[in-house]
Amino acid sequence: MTTPEEALWSPRPLGRPQPGATEKVRVVEVGPRDGLQAEQQPLPSAVKRELCERLWYAGAQSVEITSFVPPGWVPQLADAAELTAALSFPQSTRSIALVPNLHGLERARAAGYREVSAVASCTESFARANLNATAEEAFERVGQIVAAARPAGIPVRGYLSMSFGDPWEGHTSPEKAGEFAARLHRLGCSTVAISDTIGTATPQHTKDVLAAAAAAGLPVEATALHMHDTYGLALTNVYAALEEGVTEFDSSIGGLGRCPYAPGAAGNLATEDLVWMLEGLGVDTGLDLDLLADTSGWISGHLGRRSPSRVVRAFSARAAHRRITDPDTT
Amino acid sequence: MTTPEEALWSPRPLGRPQPGATEKVRVVEVGPRDGLQAEQQPLPSAVKRELCERLWYAGAQSVEITSFVPPGWVPQLADAAELTAALSFPQSTRSIALVPNLHGLERARAAGYREVSAVASCTESFARANLNATAEEAFERVGQIVAAARPAGIPVRGYLSMSFGDPWEGHTSPEKAGEFAARLHRLGCSTVAISDTIGTATPQHTKDVLAAAAAAGLPVEATALHMHDTYGLALTNVYAALEEGVTEFDSSIGGLGRCPYAPGAAGNLATEDLVWMLEGLGVDTGLDLDLLADTSGWISGHLGRRSPSRVVRAFSARAAHRRITDPDTT
Repeated sequence: MTTPEEALWSPRPLGRPQPGATEKVRVVEVGPRDGLQAEQQPLPSAVKRELCERLWYAGAQSVEITSFVPPGWVPQLADAAELTAALSFPQSTRSIALVPNLHGLERARAAGYREVSAVASCTESFARANLNATAEEAFERVGQIVAAARPAGIPVRGYLSMSFGDPWEGHTSPEKAGEFAARLHRLGCSTVAISDTIGTATPQHTKDVLAAAAAAGLPVEATALHMHDTYGLALTNVYAALEEGVTEFDSSIGGLGRCPYAPGAAGNLATEDLVWMLEGLGVDTGLDLDLLADTSGWISGHLGRRSPSRVVRAFSARAAHRRITDPDTT
Repeated sequence: MTTPEEALWSPRPLGRPQPGATEKVRVVEVGPRDGLQAEQQPLPSAVKRELCERLWYAGAQSVEITSFVPPGWVPQLADAAELTAALSFPQSTRSIALVPNLHGLERARAAGYREVSAVASCTESFARANLNATAEEAFERVGQIVAAARPAGIPVRGYLSMSFGDPWEGHTSPEKAGEFAARLHRLGCSTVAISDTIGTATPQHTKDVLAAAAAAGLPVEATALHMHDTYGLALTNVYAALEEGVTEFDSSIGGLGRCPYAPGAAGNLATEDLVWMLEGLGVDTGLDLDLLADTSGWISGHLGRRSPSRVVRAFSARAAHRRITDPDTT
């Protein structure tokens, strides 16, 4: 006889596509770079290597692997060249390295990268604190990187930090964020990742920034969104952006990447939570939810904490419940 | 001189109203009943009393206070009459008690309630496990309650459990959920709270259930949504429902209310997270976010854990950061 516990369902979302919406979304995995950079605890290169390999095995097509900033700036990623040498990039996937300037671009090219990312800022405070530059100088550097990279066939993904709010300056006006995003496009960035670095975006605010960027000349095909879950709205903001036709979203396995301005708060949008929602919208991501959940639990263990992902917690809780009620199940 | 740390912003969402959307939303606070009922640890009546008083002080207009089920069924709420006697319901607020049958209705009326709620189920498994009835019998009981309550001027709020998925039966078809929701309306329920008891709803799934309910005859004005955050989508589903014109949402202070089928997973949508999003949408709720956050931290302390609310975690993290960087600030 089957007891109710033995017969408990393993939930998966019911795929219900949005009328007229995209059927395919590009998920850009930023855990190894943006995520680990913000973690206090540097991880061994061997763990980072396994992380990348697990992500590829789970179906990740686009992974930001590391950054070529001066090693003293970000000790967590000081092993960029060594890590990259240990990796074999799978064919037909995108492997991206963040570069802060022309020297970083040269190091990334020498290491084998065929795509890079670079950061600009909506605010002076963030530019000064994190880019060691004025906002204007940060844009000029991105322009220099693009000018050197494009003739070599290397696309440059431009992040626009603090597109919604700034820890010192407060709200960023949607018009300013939109104009700055379009400026990155005019500079030649292949994609502009509009970034909610401190997580204060809400859904209509997100739509307003996207509309302002489009009005200023940024095509939706060149628009990506990079959301943090500080106030629990990363997924809702992604959903709002899907309604506006955006098809590229950043996320971080296990929500890696704490907010340096609110230690203890939630970090990046967790990849596995994003994929759960997208499956529920009938959107193909190419990613395997079970493998992502395994990897989320595994990397969280290396960082000495529980995965903050709701999906991973629900999966784990269910598995524990099953073990208790049905000890024969492993 | 002001250091950047001293000048750190206290974030609040930028209010950006959705074009054409509602300007007012009713938040029904279900923490004291639906939340505490699912917590393993029963709380003293005095703590429950303070919880209700804090919620009212924070601006709660509609609170589900307790339930009048046989005390042996739900030991956590066995103090229903005693708790109610200790409370002074503020004028012009709604105080709601859940009742399982006519006897419960009589006890709730005798205690002073002028509004009650009752539960029906989309699935046989949940009806059997939690309502000790078939799904058909549960509907008949709701009908009996309404028939006795309405002539006395007591509205009955009908919950429809398992409207999206069931822990044993899997997905609930949107057509079935819609038809069952409309049936509660036909029986005379003042509002039908379409409930995602195990949290498997996704945003288009939510819209599809709402559309099915409307097609079956449930007016949107009589529709409420009761979402759980098991897979992190409670807020996104609320946002999707706002787009469809729904204006009443259940939530639970501090996310009180674990999922009995996945212990350790997230529970009800946290009121403070809902209010943060609604403020970002320029929607008036009458609730004070700071007082809600305080109450969330306070009740989580009584339950021996951290508040699961993203907003509360961000607020706490920021306050801790400020104490470290600027010790003169209290």
